[in-house]
Amino acid sequence: MSPPPWLRALAGRFVVFEGPDGSGKSTQFRRLSELCTAAGLTVTTVRDPGGTPAGERVREILLDRALTGMSVRCEMLLYMASRAELVEQRILPALQQNHLVLADRFVPSTLAYQGAAGGLPGADIAAVARVATRGLMPDAVVLFDIDERAAAARLRPLLLDRMEAKGLDFHRRVRQGYLDQAKADPRRYVLVDASKPEAAVWAELLASLRVRAEAFASPRD
Amino acid sequence: MSPPPWLRALAGRFVVFEGPDGSGKSTQFRRLSELCTAAGLTVTTVRDPGGTPAGERVREILLDRALTGMSVRCEMLLYMASRAELVEQRILPALQQNHLVLADRFVPSTLAYQGAAGGLPGADIAAVARVATRGLMPDAVVLFDIDERAAAARLRPLLLDRMEAKGLDFHRRVRQGYLDQAKADPRRYVLVDASKPEAAVWAELLASLRVRAEAFASPRD
Repeated sequence: MSPPPWLRALAGRFVVFEGPDGSGKSTQFRRLSELCTAAGLTVTTVRDPGGTPAGERVREILLDRALTGMSVRCEMLLYMASRAELVEQRILPALQQNHLVLADRFVPSTLAYQGAAGGLPGADIAAVARVATRGLMPDAVVLFDIDERAAAARLRPLLLDRMEAKGLDFHRRVRQGYLDQAKADPRRYVLVDASKPEAAVWAELLASLRVRAEAFASPRD
Repeated sequence: MSPPPWLRALAGRFVVFEGPDGSGKSTQFRRLSELCTAAGLTVTTVRDPGGTPAGERVREILLDRALTGMSVRCEMLLYMASRAELVEQRILPALQQNHLVLADRFVPSTLAYQGAAGGLPGADIAAVARVATRGLMPDAVVLFDIDERAAAARLRPLLLDRMEAKGLDFHRRVRQGYLDQAKADPRRYVLVDASKPEAAVWAELLASLRVRAEAFASPRD
């Protein structure tokens, strides 16, 4: 498809993709990145955790199955450490150069996984996030919503890492945590029904993002 | 020496040793631990960062000279992640069993190194520390104070890791950061002149700690 002109409103914006593994998020992420590049935008894509030398080392710790006893508080702070480095070294410099920054996960993941599902108070996570991100908030959070059973069915067990091995009840709370965030901040969150076929999800993503992008045309709030 | 009876007032208390590398802190730490054990206390000693499987992995990242470009904000959050695990897995369980917990470094190090010397606002560090430590504060902080030149002279250059290679001006700010903390919280901090010979430092440490320990006899504040 030829890239629609409204995509250019995403220049200098920070867009975060969120949702469980198995939601198809990463496929759509690549697709949007390619379309925006074709539209003439300079796109910086990052993955969280990771994306920097220190962050990738932290990511190894987080995904190491040998460290299953790690407390959720330590886990949360490790995500934030990786994120602090990502904001400082990659996201802020890219935004300053008017790039579109697309992030595969950010603070909303921590609120859903370590907060709603893991039991840490949201206010504690938010307090640490403010310091870690220097107050940077996404311009839009695209949330790929899908039933935890449907998401699990799409994942092959051999690919499950430590984070994915926690069971359906955990992932039900993750989903609810995401939905509660979207409800509390409807202007920032873009909800996409990820249970549909890939082409339908892509169409819904573009339609929803267009509404947000056109709101960007007005001065930044 | 035979252990003085007042040491028993340290049971169930959390005592932190602070000061620059080269201050003789670690030697005195071992000596106090041995004396308290001889006095019949159960002593749990921990080092921060480290002291748990996840914490030791974080420590490797922090001391890796290959990661010299890491932001101070990421560094601070890594220290806090290691500390959260240490509090949860080692310090709180030991205190609940009435152990004396002796820690080689804790939050005051982060306030001095990443805060006063590294430039992060103390309020930001304190906000993250409250979450990481679940509000746990040391009963006493023994601060080994020494001129940065004297401390550097005691260290062999080959043993310098990334944290120690930052130069005298950095370490001057660390020292001032420590002294400012002690000044702001004189009931918690025990200041020891670490420029004296080892035997004199030991005598001063015991005398100062005794004053604190006798104050513990009154109900915990």
